[in-house]
Amino acid sequence: MSPVTAEDVARARAAIGDVARHTPVLPSATLSERAGGANVLLKAESLQRTGSFKIRGALNKLASVGDACSRGVVAGSAGNHAQALAFAAQARGVPCEVFMPAEASIGKAEAAQALGATVRLAGAAVDDCVSAARERAAETGMVFVHPFDDPDVVAGQGTLGLELLEDVPDLAKVIVPIGGGGLASGVAIAIKSARPGIEVVGVQAETVAPFPASLQAGEPLEAPQALTIADGIAVKRPGKLTLALVKEWVDDVVVVAEDDVAEAMVMLLEKAKLVVEGAGAVGVAALLAGATRAATDGATVVVLSGGNVDAGLLATVARRHETLVGRRIVVLTRVPDRPGALAGLLDCVADAGANMVEVSHLREGVDLHVRETAVQLVMETRGKDHAAEVLDAIARGGYVAGIIRG
Amino acid sequence: MSPVTAEDVARARAAIGDVARHTPVLPSATLSERAGGANVLLKAESLQRTGSFKIRGALNKLASVGDACSRGVVAGSAGNHAQALAFAAQARGVPCEVFMPAEASIGKAEAAQALGATVRLAGAAVDDCVSAARERAAETGMVFVHPFDDPDVVAGQGTLGLELLEDVPDLAKVIVPIGGGGLASGVAIAIKSARPGIEVVGVQAETVAPFPASLQAGEPLEAPQALTIADGIAVKRPGKLTLALVKEWVDDVVVVAEDDVAEAMVMLLEKAKLVVEGAGAVGVAALLAGATRAATDGATVVVLSGGNVDAGLLATVARRHETLVGRRIVVLTRVPDRPGALAGLLDCVADAGANMVEVSHLREGVDLHVRETAVQLVMETRGKDHAAEVLDAIARGGYVAGIIRG
Repeated sequence: MSPVTAEDVARARAAIGDVARHTPVLPSATLSERAGGANVLLKAESLQRTGSFKIRGALNKLASVGDACSRGVVAGSAGNHAQALAFAAQARGVPCEVFMPAEASIGKAEAAQALGATVRLAGAAVDDCVSAARERAAETGMVFVHPFDDPDVVAGQGTLGLELLEDVPDLAKVIVPIGGGGLASGVAIAIKSARPGIEVVGVQAETVAPFPASLQAGEPLEAPQALTIADGIAVKRPGKLTLALVKEWVDDVVVVAEDDVAEAMVMLLEKAKLVVEGAGAVGVAALLAGATRAATDGATVVVLSGGNVDAGLLATVARRHETLVGRRIVVLTRVPDRPGALAGLLDCVADAGANMVEVSHLREGVDLHVRETAVQLVMETRGKDHAAEVLDAIARGGYVAGIIRG
Repeated sequence: MSPVTAEDVARARAAIGDVARHTPVLPSATLSERAGGANVLLKAESLQRTGSFKIRGALNKLASVGDACSRGVVAGSAGNHAQALAFAAQARGVPCEVFMPAEASIGKAEAAQALGATVRLAGAAVDDCVSAARERAAETGMVFVHPFDDPDVVAGQGTLGLELLEDVPDLAKVIVPIGGGGLASGVAIAIKSARPGIEVVGVQAETVAPFPASLQAGEPLEAPQALTIADGIAVKRPGKLTLALVKEWVDDVVVVAEDDVAEAMVMLLEKAKLVVEGAGAVGVAALLAGATRAATDGATVVVLSGGNVDAGLLATVARRHETLVGRRIVVLTRVPDRPGALAGLLDCVADAGANMVEVSHLREGVDLHVRETAVQLVMETRGKDHAAEVLDAIARGGYVAGIIRG
């Protein structure tokens, strides 16, 4: 028998239902259309309390240990698991300590503190924090809560699958992010126990994607540490339990490129009006990039597993997209070094309808005549066609110009 | 009798229910806490088809005119109304033309085109487009659809209120954006006809806020044209019908400042994980700025009326917020003009844990010794306290530095 069963998930639902939200499933016209008329829906788990699915597993773990956690719970995490455990512990009235990497964002540390957790900084990597948390649990009698490799946590995450079974009668396929594998295996167990014909596909970010090789080897293999925009699923090594469960229950695991994740985040912002973190957007990236396909018969649900991303990263991702689609271009040109020359250039640009964001003079390191100045213009345009018109207008004005980015 | 009644709204619901979404109401822990423990909920109408509530009124207008619109419908609009009417016309299989300002974003024009509408550019202001649309209707026999000053449109927008009555049993107060007044009056009619004790408060952006003076004067007064981040509600003059309805049904109209709207948008991005346009965020701005208060007994719902904002504006709003909270600082300092001097400064910054975004040299226009260079640093920090630490570290390294922004 599987170490986590549909009955475990059903029990978890009863244990967490008063605190965890039943998050909405939203239609996506854009993804449905791009998938050639399939029916693609989004499970907006980004709207869950604490901004991710992790609250489900944390609450179930607390329910499962019962009075044994009266001394408190402890975990090591850089983000979502820490916030979720802090929230769950507060809801159940038990103390909570989280070990976070020294360079974790102050925002995340503050969020855990605001939820009543004691935050301790430990080492540089998440692994060091997990070790520190285990030691602390051994010393104090607090209960250590693993972010994924724990049957109670897996069963808790599986409750998301039960909601899909209820909300989407013609469910045919589920696409779900994989980091440690707790969510993917829990959801697959819940769904395929009830309706084995539904396909469940996991998605990893290719920068840190140990699952495909580990599944093939039949044991957890470690991927090198790396920076990824999907930091919430940057887990170097699958759990022993979760690898076995993913092997048993999940149909396939695919990988997506960093750029596709960034574009998926922007598509979700612009079209679905949802803020989704990189880790939460890999499923959409997989559909858009063709790493997996929507079901032709019945509904495909993409799980948006979390939305914890700060305004700075959102701004960076959005700007990058503006440049990609030609709505922001950087142009290098040159003007004679005399009064009025720059004004003439800017008139050209204004007449062409571009919005000037930044003008800078470059006098050094550029091959120029003595009486010339190089000028770099950063402009907003209405898209690639308009950008081309703006460049034409500059050329017609007698300026030699080239696009640097855009 | 009121020119729009609860029965009109009930009929509208039946007419639009197969196409318009019943959008979710989401709890907001952040707003509830800031309101001192009140229960604040968000009506996420930003997740509506075409990204705003406008689809409700457009669908109801089409249903109401019936076969009379077989020649098509026509409107003047810079944004949400155009998209909504195009979508509604497509859903009902009638032709649609929209007149848009010549400088409307290509994105919005393309969205209307993609929905099968013929887009015509007319004049600079929305008013010119509305006039052009009226003329076109008179010439062709197409049906002109006003964005708000029409009883069928008002009744359609009111369907949002019916959803609130069903979804929020202890509803005590509704906070709703006001542009032309169609949404606010429709919602107020639906809600107060059923439960007169529920308070309905409208919110305008102070830059274009003709309602308070118009209500006092008892006739529509025109506010000067102005740019606002809440462009979706930048209506210079209330409708004759909607002014009367707002006067009869809406309890109060308050105004909010531009900066508060921008901060509300970021709060919604970071905490609620929702993309909401400026016009849609004014209700949250009103709560955060104290222009109106949450109910102490029963639930307060803030209507997020739309989410149509492009990635570029989101990036700008997010960056501005990063600077406001000290997560992005711009520092001016000076270094001796010799090899290694800049490297030494950057080491200081790196040791203090700040992330360098941009370094530029300023040699002109700054009061410097001959052998000195001014350097401007743009850095990401973890917040105001960390920013102060970084400045201290620079000072301890022997550099004289001052913050320009942050």
